[in-house]
Amino acid sequence: MKNIAYYNGRIAAIEDMMIPMNDRACYFADGVYDAMFTVNHVPLSLDDHLARFYRSARRIDIEIPMPYDELRAMVVDFCKRVDSPDAMAYVQVSRGVGMRNHPYKGAQSGPSLWVWVKPDGLDPMMREYACITAEDTRYLMCDVKTINLLPSVMYAQRAEEAGCDETILHRGERVTECAHSNVHILKDGTFITAPCDNLILPGITRAHRIAQCKEMGIPVEERPFTVSEMMDADEIFFTSASALCCRVTMIDGKRVGGRDTALIRKIQQAAWDEAIAEAGIAPVPFK
Amino acid sequence: MKNIAYYNGRIAAIEDMMIPMNDRACYFADGVYDAMFTVNHVPLSLDDHLARFYRSARRIDIEIPMPYDELRAMVVDFCKRVDSPDAMAYVQVSRGVGMRNHPYKGAQSGPSLWVWVKPDGLDPMMREYACITAEDTRYLMCDVKTINLLPSVMYAQRAEEAGCDETILHRGERVTECAHSNVHILKDGTFITAPCDNLILPGITRAHRIAQCKEMGIPVEERPFTVSEMMDADEIFFTSASALCCRVTMIDGKRVGGRDTALIRKIQQAAWDEAIAEAGIAPVPFK
Repeated sequence: MKNIAYYNGRIAAIEDMMIPMNDRACYFADGVYDAMFTVNHVPLSLDDHLARFYRSARRIDIEIPMPYDELRAMVVDFCKRVDSPDAMAYVQVSRGVGMRNHPYKGAQSGPSLWVWVKPDGLDPMMREYACITAEDTRYLMCDVKTINLLPSVMYAQRAEEAGCDETILHRGERVTECAHSNVHILKDGTFITAPCDNLILPGITRAHRIAQCKEMGIPVEERPFTVSEMMDADEIFFTSASALCCRVTMIDGKRVGGRDTALIRKIQQAAWDEAIAEAGIAPVPFK
Repeated sequence: MKNIAYYNGRIAAIEDMMIPMNDRACYFADGVYDAMFTVNHVPLSLDDHLARFYRSARRIDIEIPMPYDELRAMVVDFCKRVDSPDAMAYVQVSRGVGMRNHPYKGAQSGPSLWVWVKPDGLDPMMREYACITAEDTRYLMCDVKTINLLPSVMYAQRAEEAGCDETILHRGERVTECAHSNVHILKDGTFITAPCDNLILPGITRAHRIAQCKEMGIPVEERPFTVSEMMDADEIFFTSASALCCRVTMIDGKRVGGRDTALIRKIQQAAWDEAIAEAGIAPVPFK
């Protein structure tokens, strides 16, 4: 099949799935989500993503209405059932269905569980990416993966209208992350990335790149860095579930980075090797 | 009928209305809303609320897919059709229906329009209200009435669990507003309220109270005020579509305000007189 969706016990094609207007996702963005990408029908870092999903839900006092193993099996199954070996798997939980009211105790059904898989693919790593920058005006709980995403939508749209791929956000001089990915720099052989606080999402792919760099003996600094440091870095790259390690060579119309090709390729190769090993496919060069 | 809902051309009871899972309200909180309350089946300050609704939509680049007059007529009609003379009328627009993707141009249907009316009532003004306080961690576009409301949900829930009615938010020492209302103080006969910037919603009820106070010769200062000033004020009150002027006499468990009963009653009376005149009912004392 082309795609598949689940909502509270029902299964249908994504575009045919109907949900109650009174789901609190619709009025309050009262929910959290997670997303992963497949290679060869295998969702990469599935357990990391699902563990974060359950953690996100707990952070906003929602209990996911399905045991971990059962949800895991459903995601694995859906990824196998869609035709495309390259796909995006999405899980969401909202606080439930009930008449609109801010406080939530006792006034609605149990939480709603949403799952779907649709064709999609990893962002190519041989490409060079262009970004714009913008002041980060999001709320102060960016470490929780909630569906309060309107600012990210506006930033992503702004990037697209500028003919770019992502918007790099900063609070004053401090770089935080992008509209839907983490951003990092390489300087004098060191991997520098913002620390995990309430201003950024603790990215799964970010964590994997950090772990691999440490294994390869590349020094890693988790500390705030500035816009000026970024513009002067040897390399800039972003990561997300779809972006294993995407090199940025243009920011706000200025040529940036591109000065440590050997190191960025080493990180990309390690990322790709990990992905194809997990997907169980024979080594092929990344695109 | 008990209640009534509209979504993109379909009409049903609110609890029976189904919407597509792919509405961008569900994944991105990609929409804005407004809400008003009725007395005698008449939605108060309807044109103010609808004008703000169209303004909010423009602020996030959404065009409401129904002309103003037609939407206005629908709201008026729905308010007449529900059994309860006291009700809440709700309007929402989301960016439309389409496969999940952050940028929004060309990738989905036209915007979705949501309207419903359900029984509800104004908050009584003779009651005294209790609040808690919390650091305001919301995003920096609080002047736009979007459905990115998870922080407000959490604040409202926290108030309810403390046996209170609202959470008063502050950024450091500066008081902004409440989880779902504006907050104001009276000091030495002057009405002091935070200015309209990106940290507060420009409340319709707030604007009406300001206009009435000016008419009655009560000095009004629109300027930032602090938590300390609030705790030391003669009166504290909050306003919203459901709260014409609700007096706060307890904050974080401390007795506060309650020191200028004559002035708060004068403001409440003026608010009530305006509401019943608009609703076309004979003068009765407010509760």
